[in-house]
Amino acid sequence: MADDISRFGAVSLDELPDDLRERIGAIAEKSGFVPNVFLALGHRPDELRAFCDYHDAVMEREVGLSKAERELIVVATSGANHCTYCVVAHGAILRIRAKDPFLADRVATNPWSVELTERQRAIVDLALALAVEPGAFSADDIEVARAAGLTDEEIWDVGSVTALFALSNRMAHLMALRPNDEFYLMGRVKKLG
Amino acid sequence: MADDISRFGAVSLDELPDDLRERIGAIAEKSGFVPNVFLALGHRPDELRAFCDYHDAVMEREVGLSKAERELIVVATSGANHCTYCVVAHGAILRIRAKDPFLADRVATNPWSVELTERQRAIVDLALALAVEPGAFSADDIEVARAAGLTDEEIWDVGSVTALFALSNRMAHLMALRPNDEFYLMGRVKKLG
Amino acid sequence: MADDISRFGAVSLDELPDDLRERIGAIAEKSGFVPNVFLALGHRPDELRAFCDYHDAVMEREVGLSKAERELIVVATSGANHCTYCVVAHGAILRIRAKDPFLADRVATNPWSVELTERQRAIVDLALALAVEPGAFSADDIEVARAAGLTDEEIWDVGSVTALFALSNRMAHLMALRPNDEFYLMGRVKKLG
Amino acid sequence: MADDISRFGAVSLDELPDDLRERIGAIAEKSGFVPNVFLALGHRPDELRAFCDYHDAVMEREVGLSKAERELIVVATSGANHCTYCVVAHGAILRIRAKDPFLADRVATNPWSVELTERQRAIVDLALALAVEPGAFSADDIEVARAAGLTDEEIWDVGSVTALFALSNRMAHLMALRPNDEFYLMGRVKKLG
Amino acid sequence: MADDISRFGAVSLDELPDDLRERIGAIAEKSGFVPNVFLALGHRPDELRAFCDYHDAVMEREVGLSKAERELIVVATSGANHCTYCVVAHGAILRIRAKDPFLADRVATNPWSVELTERQRAIVDLALALAVEPGAFSADDIEVARAAGLTDEEIWDVGSVTALFALSNRMAHLMALRPNDEFYLMGRVKKLG
Amino acid sequence: MADDISRFGAVSLDELPDDLRERIGAIAEKSGFVPNVFLALGHRPDELRAFCDYHDAVMEREVGLSKAERELIVVATSGANHCTYCVVAHGAILRIRAKDPFLADRVATNPWSVELTERQRAIVDLALALAVEPGAFSADDIEVARAAGLTDEEIWDVGSVTALFALSNRMAHLMALRPNDEFYLMGRVKKLG
Repeated sequence: MADDISRFGAVSLDELPDDLRERIGAIAEKSGFVPNVFLALGHRPDELRAFCDYHDAVMEREVGLSKAERELIVVATSGANHCTYCVVAHGAILRIRAKDPFLADRVATNPWSVELTERQRAIVDLALALAVEPGAFSADDIEVARAAGLTDEEIWDVGSVTALFALSNRMAHLMALRPNDEFYLMGRVKKLG
Repeated sequence: MADDISRFGAVSLDELPDDLRERIGAIAEKSGFVPNVFLALGHRPDELRAFCDYHDAVMEREVGLSKAERELIVVATSGANHCTYCVVAHGAILRIRAKDPFLADRVATNPWSVELTERQRAIVDLALALAVEPGAFSADDIEVARAAGLTDEEIWDVGSVTALFALSNRMAHLMALRPNDEFYLMGRVKKLG
Repeated sequence: MADDISRFGAVSLDELPDDLRERIGAIAEKSGFVPNVFLALGHRPDELRAFCDYHDAVMEREVGLSKAERELIVVATSGANHCTYCVVAHGAILRIRAKDPFLADRVATNPWSVELTERQRAIVDLALALAVEPGAFSADDIEVARAAGLTDEEIWDVGSVTALFALSNRMAHLMALRPNDEFYLMGRVKKLG
Repeated sequence: MADDISRFGAVSLDELPDDLRERIGAIAEKSGFVPNVFLALGHRPDELRAFCDYHDAVMEREVGLSKAERELIVVATSGANHCTYCVVAHGAILRIRAKDPFLADRVATNPWSVELTERQRAIVDLALALAVEPGAFSADDIEVARAAGLTDEEIWDVGSVTALFALSNRMAHLMALRPNDEFYLMGRVKKLG
Repeated sequence: MADDISRFGAVSLDELPDDLRERIGAIAEKSGFVPNVFLALGHRPDELRAFCDYHDAVMEREVGLSKAERELIVVATSGANHCTYCVVAHGAILRIRAKDPFLADRVATNPWSVELTERQRAIVDLALALAVEPGAFSADDIEVARAAGLTDEEIWDVGSVTALFALSNRMAHLMALRPNDEFYLMGRVKKLG
Repeated sequence: MADDISRFGAVSLDELPDDLRERIGAIAEKSGFVPNVFLALGHRPDELRAFCDYHDAVMEREVGLSKAERELIVVATSGANHCTYCVVAHGAILRIRAKDPFLADRVATNPWSVELTERQRAIVDLALALAVEPGAFSADDIEVARAAGLTDEEIWDVGSVTALFALSNRMAHLMALRPNDEFYLMGRVKKLG
């Protein structure tokens, strides 16, 4: 079963060091299941711990971009990178955060032309520029983002999220990481008022 | 001067929280100067701390790939990503680690065709596949690496280093991070016995 | 509302000529809703009629590839072409035809590396070669498909489906065609025995 | 000989069902020869019939773009797709329709930079955007075309012709379809008044 | 009229220095017209002279590749580079040298998949590798060419012709160089025995 | 040792014809060593002579672009073409001509986003457009260069240098030409006043 999760196998929750078992356990409790990425990265606790810390520093930041906007970046750049784990897992989170059952599939399938608000479009364009062809990134990309009203702190947020998932997408591709079945259905049905 | 370092300015060493000031200070002492990346990322101590932890977990690991091999991956993938800061800074480190004044420029200019040992070529090919077009990464890339004699632990090492510098290259592009002048000359003259 | 469907508006079912109204009406009855593509193409009944005829000749053929295999090609090439309408609509049909709630999202997100049977992989590789970079298509692609056991009739099937959706994807992009909401949920829950 | 025409052989005119034999026969009478595409597609009468119907709906339409403009799109997009059959066959038709012995070779060799009237350039740019990288097609492409004076009906025409030859180019690549020798010389000598 | 020839105008034959007037004059006498490239480059006699010398050293060499093979390389790489002047002018020469009225159009439209002899295919593949993506050129390309029977002298010939027309294609693009009308018809009609 | 220089070996200075031995000898005297390119091309004196003539006509021209600007183009386009010999050799010359120990590494690593003066940026952008994707070069590229203040003579200079090194880069890739060790250190230490 662990082989299904990753090309390099996976650990179980209780094989993790105490701090990580507690930390991932809390996530599992909230979600109802342990997202596979944690069990697959668990082979290397130091890398997993740094990954979690980086994730929290970037994705749980209280100021700047909204949480839905951060997930929008993750889904857009993971779509452009064809990363199945991140598209499926964060697609679920985006559906929930944005309270929209359709947005994630649209963004993941075509982040370049999906209809978005002007602010969302500026965020996604900046993220895609950095994610896909970083060598061509230039002062022009920054100027366009500023002209669309993004502050420098928000621009940094876009950059940090994009950079972290450039890492994360590549680890998932390396491992052929499989999304948990639970993610596929999450947030697909609009809650009644 | 701080503006020269990054599009978003930079902090000075003593603006950092204690733990980071101490940690970066130790690096500065060893190098003779503070590498700009730390001052530029210093705006966000949480991100800088996670970056340092991730860096150490991946680059300072005692087993698996040699340190010169890890730097080889950094220079090759940063060359492919046209990341000036990482090419110049880690090019210096590669010259020193590999005790070769020419290798870094060759690898950075053309990682695809630079003459390498068979093992180095397998490492670099795997890293480039993951760095440049992650969506096309497949079981074949893994098989080729295994056939060249890399163990699964070494393959993971290649993946981790590549993934971390996918992040790092993008942060450097975001900030238009400028390499310290000192890096350009380091390791260029062969030490006499 | 019609504007929501397509950049160029849409007709209603009863604005169609008799033969098409009857034909599309039968589809609507079976699905429970009128797929937007028919209302959007309805502006030009001659084109819509030819489209339906071509579709039936290629997708409803009784011999050769199975219907699930044909839908697999549609989802794979539409994913590669970032065509939201076709990915969402035919993703739903693939889930139903293949009796698999996960396959479509995996194929659409990354048709190049998704885990498939050997026969499916040969089909998808041939389709992607023709869909994405037709100018580089060569006798080698045919030879690889034959070596994997595909007959010439099946190879033609792969080609026809790929070619038809090269057309279809482009019409959908031209119109900014929006998928019906109903497609997103179809086939996501495994039926109990 | 039939093997010369297509990788999968070809039928002769009298092997076709009556309606198609009559329809293709009429074309042959007008041209002086049977264009190979009909004999090669003749293996599958249903597909050939739908192809002819789609072709007539799109290429013989009495309003909208002129016939020379439609052929211009075919040659430009087939050039971009490196489709030898369509470039050679429709290059001949373009020379005749546009009464210009040089235009087709120029357009096929470099549709992006060939000197054209402003209206022709707008048509070709729109067609290339949709033909070559459909995933990046966006509202901007439509806006540019409208700004150049194209009506929405004409924009649809550009899209339909482009889409049909996206299909047609791929069928020709699949079959390695060989152009009839007659096409190469047609329309190369300017008729005297 | 000179403006028709090149974006930067053109000289007339008698504006050239004596040696070049004589040299180009001899070519004109043989062809029946002055190929536009010479009048367009004539603005800079030193560059034109070096161009003619390089051309003769590479294209008129008595040993190694045949003249038809050299023209094959020119048409293939100029097709890949979408260079209208070189495709039209050297297409004419290839038709004559290869005594084949169809080959040039086929090669120019799709050098990657045009049917060729095994030796021609090896030549063209090597040329395309060097012409189109030189940074990825490697020892493997050389090995494949050697395995197909090309000698090292012939491989150098392929390289020289490709390199010279990498230069020539770019000068033609820079100047928007227009082919002489005469080239379009040359060699299109098979000579009777 | 000659095998180290090039995949096809190299000649020694005294194997060259008199005129070339004298010409290359003079360069060697000035540099303190014989640049490898001359020994590697020496197999074919006619090609080497034409190369030297072309080089002098383009690089030693007294009017138009400055010599540092010409070297800037060489380093930028050779960087984009991943040509190690030209980047290392002309990087050294650029450091000297521009009296800047850092510029060459920055330009070679990322010619698209390196910080330059407005005039330098216009020169490099024009050169990259022609070097990398010549088929897409158009009147727009010329207009942008003119708008930035470049004269038509300077634009031709940019084109000539770019075209010559399109040739030169490909010969170096063909031969796997190795840079002389001396180039790596030249111009790296700022001269004191």
